[in-house]
Order: sequence, then structure tokens, then C-alpha cells
Amino acid sequence: MDLRLAFIGFGNVARSFARILAARGNQLNEEHRLRCITTAIATGSHGSVTSKDGLDLLAAVALVERGSQLTELPRCQPAADSLAVVNESRADVVFETTPLDINSGEPAITHIRAALTRGLHVITANKGPIAFAYSELKALAEHHGGQFRFEGTVMDGTPIFNLVELCLAGTRVLGFSGVLNSTTNLILTGMEGGQSFEKSLAEAQRRGIAEANADYDVDGWDAAMKTVALANVLMNAEARPAGVERSGIRDISIKDVEAAAVSGNVIRLVARADRSGNGVSLVVRPELVSRASVFGSLGGTSNALVIKTDLMGEIAVIENDPGVEQTAYALLSDLISVHKAIHHA
Amino acid sequence: MDLRLAFIGFGNVARSFARILAARGNQLNEEHRLRCITTAIATGSHGSVTSKDGLDLLAAVALVERGSQLTELPRCQPAADSLAVVNESRADVVFETTPLDINSGEPAITHIRAALTRGLHVITANKGPIAFAYSELKALAEHHGGQFRFEGTVMDGTPIFNLVELCLAGTRVLGFSGVLNSTTNLILTGMEGGQSFEKSLAEAQRRGIAEANADYDVDGWDAAMKTVALANVLMNAEARPAGVERSGIRDISIKDVEAAAVSGNVIRLVARADRSGNGVSLVVRPELVSRASVFGSLGGTSNALVIKTDLMGEIAVIENDPGVEQTAYALLSDLISVHKAIHHA
Repeated sequence: MDLRLAFIGFGNVARSFARILAARGNQLNEEHRLRCITTAIATGSHGSVTSKDGLDLLAAVALVERGSQLTELPRCQPAADSLAVVNESRADVVFETTPLDINSGEPAITHIRAALTRGLHVITANKGPIAFAYSELKALAEHHGGQFRFEGTVMDGTPIFNLVELCLAGTRVLGFSGVLNSTTNLILTGMEGGQSFEKSLAEAQRRGIAEANADYDVDGWDAAMKTVALANVLMNAEARPAGVERSGIRDISIKDVEAAAVSGNVIRLVARADRSGNGVSLVVRPELVSRASVFGSLGGTSNALVIKTDLMGEIAVIENDPGVEQTAYALLSDLISVHKAIHHA
Repeated sequence: MDLRLAFIGFGNVARSFARILAARGNQLNEEHRLRCITTAIATGSHGSVTSKDGLDLLAAVALVERGSQLTELPRCQPAADSLAVVNESRADVVFETTPLDINSGEPAITHIRAALTRGLHVITANKGPIAFAYSELKALAEHHGGQFRFEGTVMDGTPIFNLVELCLAGTRVLGFSGVLNSTTNLILTGMEGGQSFEKSLAEAQRRGIAEANADYDVDGWDAAMKTVALANVLMNAEARPAGVERSGIRDISIKDVEAAAVSGNVIRLVARADRSGNGVSLVVRPELVSRASVFGSLGGTSNALVIKTDLMGEIAVIENDPGVEQTAYALLSDLISVHKAIHHA
């Protein structure tokens, strides 16, 4: 069974996914009877193209990585912009991976709304739309019969949303706590090893882990957006990013880290969600945690989420020192979910 | 939609599940359109009964817990034994929760084989059948169109088998390591707090955590059976318990625990599986691990499994200080899976 794919945004994550798709095409066909054809790519600075018969995805990766324009691809038509791609690509599945906007979640929400309204399936790794417009987009998907998947928005391809949806049926999520931002964890554990804030941040940027605007990581925005996304999906919180009590790690010094170590502790940027009254309270802030705790054990880019449930007690999921490939896997995981849902495969 | 349930074995786990089923009956009907009727219970020392129209599950729990015979239940017929229950109960789903046998996995395998051969669905929390006969039972289920679920065999209701099957599609499991036995972890962490081996073991028995024969925990058999079950299901290992290099914690003294602490370490009973040559090597043994590691962070009855994959890197799942209710949840989780699979719900 063929699925026609369109990409809106073609940065680190999308290109890493493109490489996986090229390498695993045969496996997907053998194990899931799934064949993929890319019919459109929209980018901010490398042009946008559509191709009725499918374009060469690896050639597109190569063009973008050497700074060229996608319009150089053979058998492709230039497209005006992202929305034109949604409307003209005849795609079945749209991958939305444009950069995070912390104020409105745009233009990703507009892209996703347009695709879902046309009855297309949407896969995103952008947490903005889940933080700002989850219930609207979910309802839109249900109304038009499309799938809307977003596993990669929190902890990359580590199963979180799928875990609760598919593996914790019958339970109710009472709250959660997590270390959700890789860049700040890399900085804090770097400082524990005596490395400066700046050098650790540079490493995160080199590895393609940091947000396009690294202030979003350092000031806790990325973690806050993930916290809201988790609360909206797992706890029906109808929360918004402005409602998170948020502080980042900008003011944490090596001295603070050293002082924590004296008492067997480390500093982690911790997100917390708890039911309070008839709402959900959301907090992101640096916390002192024991070195001998799950959060204390997280080195490098590692993340962890502790989920409190009624029937299943407390379980935690850890992602051990991920790179951009693990976010790319989220897109594959979601693609297989979409394929299974629409083909009952 | 109604499902008719039969219980073979009605110990701590099954009775805890019965309580959940009674408490959550309305929720299951509302959220999953699932109504359950219990048509048979077979026990080792409280008799066995069938009931065409359904028996009162909570009344059965109360009878067993005060040491009475199930034949006292109204509108029930006595059954000869477990196999008679399978054959005469007209059940849709059989719950196999008899005690673990480390030498052969019997009589659980016989019960499950009989049920699957009749086209019934089987849910088990007994790791013996998965360790000794997984591929046979899986093939039998597929041949006769039955579902065969066993989430509770490892780490209770914490999603492990479902996690890999449902949430890690497209990846290959390369190996795993885990702290899988609650009783030994309770003993070891008890000893870290200065409590004797015997007192901690007694606590595990009081909480219904320890195996019926606690030697199975202490000598590493339980962990070995789980390791084999994981390897068979996640890595197609076709392994058997005798193939595990196994040592338990019987010879660990408070002195060993104290010596470990001096260097910032703790002792944990660790299971490991790795591909080696054309097979899978399986080891269960006490290991010195850093207090500041995931395994080192596990207190009380907590368990953890680290799964190494090709595409998704390394993820870990932790079950935080579970009790028997969390094993019971595994049965509910599997029941909902069976219901979804057969009713496409």
C-alpha cells in the first residue's frame, strides 16, 4: 500500500527521517506492506516543490545540505509556499516540522489545520500546535477522518503519548514529573564535569539538539511547551504555555552545581503537573534532586518522565542520551501508526 | 459486548484483579463497551466451579479469603479440575494465574494449550509458559484465532511486551538489561537500611510480592524466567531457563552491602541479554552498580528494564515500588487488549 508524503519544514529532524526512510524502505515494505512516495517539500530558505510522480528524497537532502534550492530537483514543479504544498501535493500524510514558535504555535497550526481540513493525515514533531491548539486540531482530525500523531513532540521517539493511549488503557493519569529538555540537561551535566555553560550549549547546538533559538531551551520555554502538551493530551488540561509557572537555568552557576554536589545532589530542570482544585497546575523550574534518584541519574541529553496513574501506580520512562535520530524515529513510529490505522494493517 | 471469563488459579493476583473488575465494571462498559461475566473458577485448594449464567466474583473472593470452598456459591456446578473448567465453562477468555513451576512451566502450559486449542483467548501472569513454550503457544493461538496475552509476566502491568509490540514498531531489540525481581530488590535495599535479609523477605511475603516458594526469588529463578520470557518474545531467542547463567543473592551479606556503599555503589540482581554469535546470551547475577545510576536508584520493590534498540537507541522503563495491584492491572490491560482485538473496539 502506498502513502504519499509531503514535508513542511526540512530541517535536521526531517532530513534525518528521510535518511531512515531511504535506508529502511525495504523493511517497511516487507514488514508493514508500506511504500512511501514523497510528493512535496516546503522549506523556508531552500524553496518549495511538488512532484506528482514522487521526488528523490535523498537527492533533496543532499541539495539542502549543500545550500542549494530544491527547484534544482528533476521532474519537480516549484510551489508558492507551505500552504500551496498542502493544497497541491496530493499527499496522504503531511509531516509538519517547522521551528517552534513559543508565542502562538504558528505557522505550524495553520499548516496542520489546512491539512486536516482537507482530510489529510498529519504527523508533527512541533510541540507548539499541541500546546496551543490540541483540542481544536484533534476535533478537526476526527471530523475529517484524518489521523493526527505527534509522538516526537516530547522525548523524541520514546513512547509517551502512544504508551498512555495504547498500553495504559483503563488507567487515569493523575499527574507527572519529568526532565524533558535535552539541551539544559547537557548543560547542567556538563557543568557537573567542570565544563562551562557556553561550551555545553555549543555542544548541544553542534549535535542538532538545541532549538533553533537556544534561549527557548535555556529559559525553560521548550520544557514548558512540552509540559503543556503532556497535560493537554494525557490529562485533558486545556492548558496554555502562559499558564506554566516557569523559570529556566540561565542563572545557575558552576558554584550552584558544586554546592549541590556537596550534599549528594544535582540540579535538574524539572517539569511537574498535578491536579489542583478543578484544574491542573504546571511548573517548570530547576530543582535540587538526589544524585541517587531517577532524575539525578540522567546524564547528557537524557530525558525522563514519571507518570502517576490510578491503577498502575507510578511508572517512569527514560530516554538515554538521544540524538536527532531519535526524534526522526518518532516520525517513523507515527507513520507506521497512521498506516496501521488507515489500512487496519 | 460481553466477555465470559474463566479463572484458573485464584490467588493474590487473580483476587486483586477481581476487585478491580468489580470496582471498574461501569467504567469498562462506558469507555470500552465491555461487560464481563465470570463463568468458572478453578483453584487448588478451594474447589472448582462453573456457572452458566455467571457467578458473583466478589462473593468468590470473600469465600476463598475466609478459607471456604467455592462450591458454597449459589447457582454453581462443581467442576472436576482445571481442565474441566476450560472445557465446560463456555468462557471466551481464560485467566491462567497458577503458581510458577521453574522446572517445566506446568501445569500452566497444559491449561493454556487446552484453552488455545479450543479457540479461547488466554491471559496469563505466569512466566513459566513464556519461558518454556512461547513459540508453540503463540503458533497455537494464531492457528486457532485466539489472543494470547502475558503483559503481567514481567514487571507487572508496566507496559513491556505491549510497549515493544505497539509503540516501537520498525525497531529491532538488540538486547536488554534489567532489575526484574521485586523480592530481591526489597531485600537488598532493606539491607542498605540495616534491615536483615530475613526481615525484608518476610515483608515481601506479607505484601504478596514474593513467589509462593520464595527460594525462586532469592536464587534468581524468577529473574531468570523473566529474562528468558523477554528474550523469547522481544528477541526471538528460543531460549530456555536452563540456558541462563544464573546466580542469586543468597550469599550476599550486610557486610557486602556496606562495602559497596563505601565506593558509592549498591548491589542489584541484574539480568542481561545480548546477541552473541547466532544466539542470545542470558545472565542473571548480583552486580555492583553506581548509586547514581538508574538501577542504583531503584528502591523497595521497584523494577527497571533498559531496552537497546537499533533506531530508537536506549530507553528504560521503571516501575516504582509496585504492589500486587499492579500485577492485577496487567490482567485488566490484557483483557482490554483482547477486547479491542476481537471487537476492533
